[in-house]
Amino acid sequence: MARPTVVTMPGDGIGNQVLPQAIRVLEAVGFEANYVHADIGWECWCNEGNALPDRTIQLLRKHKLGLFGAITSKPKKAADAELKPELRGKGLSYFSPIVTMRQLFNLDVCMRPCLSFPGNPLNFIRQTTCGGFEEPQVDVVVFRQNTEGLYAGVEWTNPPENVRTALASHKKFAAFANTPGEELAVSVRIITKKNAQRICEAAFKHAKKYRYKNVTICEKPNVLRETSGMMEEVAKQVQKQYPEIALWSTNIDAQTMWLTKNPEEYGVIVASNLFGDVISDAFAGLVGGLGFAASGNIGDEVAVFEPTHGSAPKYAELNPSIVNPIAMILSAAMMLDHIGESEKADRIRKAIADVVKEGKVRTYDMMRIAGGPKSLAQGAANTVQITDAILVHVET
Amino acid sequence: MARPTVVTMPGDGIGNQVLPQAIRVLEAVGFEANYVHADIGWECWCNEGNALPDRTIQLLRKHKLGLFGAITSKPKKAADAELKPELRGKGLSYFSPIVTMRQLFNLDVCMRPCLSFPGNPLNFIRQTTCGGFEEPQVDVVVFRQNTEGLYAGVEWTNPPENVRTALASHKKFAAFANTPGEELAVSVRIITKKNAQRICEAAFKHAKKYRYKNVTICEKPNVLRETSGMMEEVAKQVQKQYPEIALWSTNIDAQTMWLTKNPEEYGVIVASNLFGDVISDAFAGLVGGLGFAASGNIGDEVAVFEPTHGSAPKYAELNPSIVNPIAMILSAAMMLDHIGESEKADRIRKAIADVVKEGKVRTYDMMRIAGGPKSLAQGAANTVQITDAILVHVET
Ligand SMILES: CC(C)[C@H](C(=O)O)[C@@H](O)C(=O)O
Ligand SMILES: CC(C)[C@H](C(=O)O)[C@@H](O)C(=O)O
Repeated sequence: MARPTVVTMPGDGIGNQVLPQAIRVLEAVGFEANYVHADIGWECWCNEGNALPDRTIQLLRKHKLGLFGAITSKPKKAADAELKPELRGKGLSYFSPIVTMRQLFNLDVCMRPCLSFPGNPLNFIRQTTCGGFEEPQVDVVVFRQNTEGLYAGVEWTNPPENVRTALASHKKFAAFANTPGEELAVSVRIITKKNAQRICEAAFKHAKKYRYKNVTICEKPNVLRETSGMMEEVAKQVQKQYPEIALWSTNIDAQTMWLTKNPEEYGVIVASNLFGDVISDAFAGLVGGLGFAASGNIGDEVAVFEPTHGSAPKYAELNPSIVNPIAMILSAAMMLDHIGESEKADRIRKAIADVVKEGKVRTYDMMRIAGGPKSLAQGAANTVQITDAILVHVET
Repeated sequence: MARPTVVTMPGDGIGNQVLPQAIRVLEAVGFEANYVHADIGWECWCNEGNALPDRTIQLLRKHKLGLFGAITSKPKKAADAELKPELRGKGLSYFSPIVTMRQLFNLDVCMRPCLSFPGNPLNFIRQTTCGGFEEPQVDVVVFRQNTEGLYAGVEWTNPPENVRTALASHKKFAAFANTPGEELAVSVRIITKKNAQRICEAAFKHAKKYRYKNVTICEKPNVLRETSGMMEEVAKQVQKQYPEIALWSTNIDAQTMWLTKNPEEYGVIVASNLFGDVISDAFAGLVGGLGFAASGNIGDEVAVFEPTHGSAPKYAELNPSIVNPIAMILSAAMMLDHIGESEKADRIRKAIADVVKEGKVRTYDMMRIAGGPKSLAQGAANTVQITDAILVHVET
């Protein structure tokens, strides 16, 4: 195989601290690649009026593989105010570059593994009735449809007359007939059969490959009869090709309630965009939270891997950096899986598991103490130190 | 005050088992009322083609106070098949009677307290870094907007031409321009400023009355700029009248992740309809789940109180009934609060707290064993027995 080129997009804030650590780990497992830096995020917005510049799009189109750190986003007013004066008033508007990237390259399959590493004090536990506790082993992979649903971007406040008239052709709109335009906001949730099919197929394929016993479609068809109804219907059709895998169907509300009851019983979960966003974060909270939540945004051509945490501006200025780079490192391991280098990916995950299990080197989040410079004095490892510990295990 | 009349709507399945227990408790605290039964649910659908018959609507309109048990709902096909033969083909369609009731009577404020009772083995616990565990005291009240948002019911599969054209006037719809009509489903999320204001005001008012230090608006304005944006903006405006209460703002995804990190830090949470549905179930999962999740659907005129669990057809046939009636009893206590009988409501909650704390009488869910007739042989209390225990404490 030709030496791959990875487009690195550290982005904002702590993205710049965690991404280089992931590259150290990739190098340590002997992954040979070229890395090319690409600009993305807040500075691009402020200086160029575009958080995802064309040159970055070109690089991704060319090399097809990206590692992304994190981005800052701000409410509309603040975003407008930080735009370079000469760019103001040109109708530019800030839009999340990661969401844009997903849609532009049709990275429609978002994969989010939620796996508990034994020994992690952040792991979910539950009470036993005799006064003790038990720690279920969670191993869930969420397949989130990544391009449509409530992320379609089709929304209005004070919808134009033709939109309002069209909505009013639905009898249920009668309840809103007297709402003044400027007091009415609508966002359209859009589901297509094609993309429902693609995400369900990806979920079942993964379940089969990794021998999960069930796939759960997590929607709300009792209320969203058309859109969730379509998702559920498609899941039922796709399941027919996988007789060995059970299809479970849950409602997103009930699923979040059962989350803390029997999380170990779920395998693969598939959901539309926003529901996948929610349920993957919910499960991530059971296995370590932000410091452990990795993800892949995968299309037919291009794939981008990213921790799901943000840019954490509060921590970005600290030197040494104290944030937990494991989510970023796990995202890099997912990239290896994606290009058929699973043996190397497994070595990375094994090294992380070892470090977590030993428990000698822990970032502040794993110690449940406040982040900040003081955490180091309390015994927390910094970003480089925990990576060093992972490297030691990778190399042995 | 005149003796109130309460419209009792046990509905389907276990609704018929738990509602009478709540009335026993109401009587035990000396609440003097008349009870009038009203039909609702699956049988009404099958025999009359309407799960919420007019006579029930009239009773609620007249008496203004309802206790609701649970309902069964089934997918469209099954619902159609169970309709009385002579009613078929008349264009009738099943719609959730509780959702209909909320919209018909404008029960726009849905209140869902999530309070942990000490000693409940179902309570959420988390690890400490020294190998033990701690049990945070959760005391959250979710204020869910109850009539609009994604529950507006404005949805289509294969939208008619005028709707499609209107959607296509948004530039973001370009991504769907080539999707064949029958492969396209849309659900419209509708937010009005008026109802956003009403739910935010209800949340702050409650926070002030019960001295919560913060109100959290839980939306997704970074993606749903118009609809969640409007909710958040309104929350900010309303907060200005409550300088002593902090407004926190979280995204629904992040909120479900933090759920298992610091649930004790949240007070009142306010959200649009579906997000409130999700986040209230998520918090309910931390304080006992289905058996403890009570709610009130409150309008200016009418109010209906209900446990959020379903009709549990599997358990409905068991004699004696084994399900946990506490959610229903707590809902009845909320009804007392609503009509200014908080002293009686507090006595009920105190009695439940005592029974849970003693831990001698527990339904199967609190023992984390499978429900079913065998659970009684394993020492689980049945529905009447746990109510008896509550009555003992109410009376002492
Ligand atoms: C940053 C935000 C737009 C994004 C999303 O909502 O998809 C994030 O929450 C994620 O999960 O990747
Ligand atoms: C039964 C269902 C329609 C209902 C809802 O979604 O509101 C339920 O989940 C609830 O929370 O009361």
